[in-house]
Amino acid sequence: MGKLLIVGTLAFDAIESPFGKTDKILGGAGTFIGLAAAQFNVESAIVSIVGDDFNQEYLDLLSQRNIDLSGVEIVKGGKTFFWSGKYHNDLNTRDTLVTELNTLADFDPKVPDSFKDADVVMLGNLDPNIQLSVINQVSSRPKLIILDTMNYWMNHTWNDLLKVIQRVDVITLNDEEARQLTQEYSLVRAAEKIEEMGPKYVVIKKGEHGALLFHRKKIFFAPALPLEEVFDPTGAGDTFAGGFAGYLASTKNVSFENLKNAVIHGSNLASFCVERFGTERMVDLTFPEVQRRLEQFKELTQFNIEIE
Amino acid sequence: MGKLLIVGTLAFDAIESPFGKTDKILGGAGTFIGLAAAQFNVESAIVSIVGDDFNQEYLDLLSQRNIDLSGVEIVKGGKTFFWSGKYHNDLNTRDTLVTELNTLADFDPKVPDSFKDADVVMLGNLDPNIQLSVINQVSSRPKLIILDTMNYWMNHTWNDLLKVIQRVDVITLNDEEARQLTQEYSLVRAAEKIEEMGPKYVVIKKGEHGALLFHRKKIFFAPALPLEEVFDPTGAGDTFAGGFAGYLASTKNVSFENLKNAVIHGSNLASFCVERFGTERMVDLTFPEVQRRLEQFKELTQFNIEIE
Repeated sequence: MGKLLIVGTLAFDAIESPFGKTDKILGGAGTFIGLAAAQFNVESAIVSIVGDDFNQEYLDLLSQRNIDLSGVEIVKGGKTFFWSGKYHNDLNTRDTLVTELNTLADFDPKVPDSFKDADVVMLGNLDPNIQLSVINQVSSRPKLIILDTMNYWMNHTWNDLLKVIQRVDVITLNDEEARQLTQEYSLVRAAEKIEEMGPKYVVIKKGEHGALLFHRKKIFFAPALPLEEVFDPTGAGDTFAGGFAGYLASTKNVSFENLKNAVIHGSNLASFCVERFGTERMVDLTFPEVQRRLEQFKELTQFNIEIE
Repeated sequence: MGKLLIVGTLAFDAIESPFGKTDKILGGAGTFIGLAAAQFNVESAIVSIVGDDFNQEYLDLLSQRNIDLSGVEIVKGGKTFFWSGKYHNDLNTRDTLVTELNTLADFDPKVPDSFKDADVVMLGNLDPNIQLSVINQVSSRPKLIILDTMNYWMNHTWNDLLKVIQRVDVITLNDEEARQLTQEYSLVRAAEKIEEMGPKYVVIKKGEHGALLFHRKKIFFAPALPLEEVFDPTGAGDTFAGGFAGYLASTKNVSFENLKNAVIHGSNLASFCVERFGTERMVDLTFPEVQRRLEQFKELTQFNIEIE
């Protein structure tokens, strides 16, 4: 069984969408990554920080899924990171209403000793300095270090972000972020430039339009499963990353061919995530449901043309 | 060898893009459909109308590709349909600068007798009344009637368009048009509603984001090939339709499984079309190039996950 080390937020989210509105519910990149990775035969650990206002049932929900939480610092009298956002009618764009860093402002990640030899390290979207600290605490070189990031860090901590990008094997980011990072409109050219910055593999996420995996001149594409209704996109990108990382940690195979499969597994799990608010769908997801939807991904993409 | 009947414009186009500007060059839906279909082992005919200002070399270029032009009316003293457009920097949007219908205003299509028993009929984007007239001239029921249309006809000839939609087996239109036609945002729901209007198969084109094929509850997706540079998107949709229709006419197999292959062939040919201005790339395209790029489509989309 492979070991997966995750660093990412455990958070409270409050979400407004055309379909309704939630109170503070369980959220955070670490949470979504952990829940997705838990669909695979893998030992994982989350490194994070919360206040003592964070619900014990949320921690239980994660540890019941065989996720090691010894790297989660609980700050006495502290408040947990809180994010609130409102989606527009098309669900492709959103406004952030509130961001309260709270305990996250002083997060100094501590990797548990038992995960310093992780096979795969998944750096969830966070301040690049935190991500760098995690890389530095890992003792043996992991098979794969995966970085998820976003435009905020390009705007505010450019140099630190570049340092992390240099140190990772895979980067995942969305299409606009790939363009911002490289000043290239063509995603093919953007991916080539990003590969020159360090990562051997570049994953560009296009939301409802799927995800692209680049490696040297090779490209693989996974569509998003067309759904009757997208309910709440929150956590879809993190769920993708968790499925991708979890599958790779469970197989311990980091060939390009297996990374293709990992992109499909990530897309598959993300297609569930968006069906309900927050983590709701990921929490009750069963193995047979996941397998059936993988079958749908095959029907969606596989064809049979003989090439002469 | 299957027979393919095409109705569509032969036109002059003048194109401005961030990469340059053309004088009046060969264009028109009929032209792009014909050139794409000519990549397959098929007998095809174009039904269209031009003025006597239309270049003989353009007609020769089509007839050299085994395209029957006996259904092309050449109006003495008439002027050929002319379209001019300017693409924005992202190439996803364009402004129409000039539309001169000219001879197209009085187009009364005449299907050649030898194509009244066509296996596949491809109705290129035109006034629904012209498309209807072609359907009515076909004597034996074709294996497949394919309709391409656009928002213009929804805005101006709604009832006539619905009559054509009732009579066809396949409709191809873009995502925004599918939404406009059905008042459904979800493409899955939009396709279901369109199937209720008549067509057994619905193809929704998403430009650089690929194309979806719907049939009852089944969905197939073909990505657009990620390119370093898109030079000129003019004719990409028509080329897709021509590849789709040409492949189906050549195989005479209209099963859902074979329609999947047709969507891939259409996407494959469209990926060449956008590499140069107008028809330039389609005119010099060779069989080995097409085969090599089909291989790229396989690498782009095929994966190997065992489902339990």
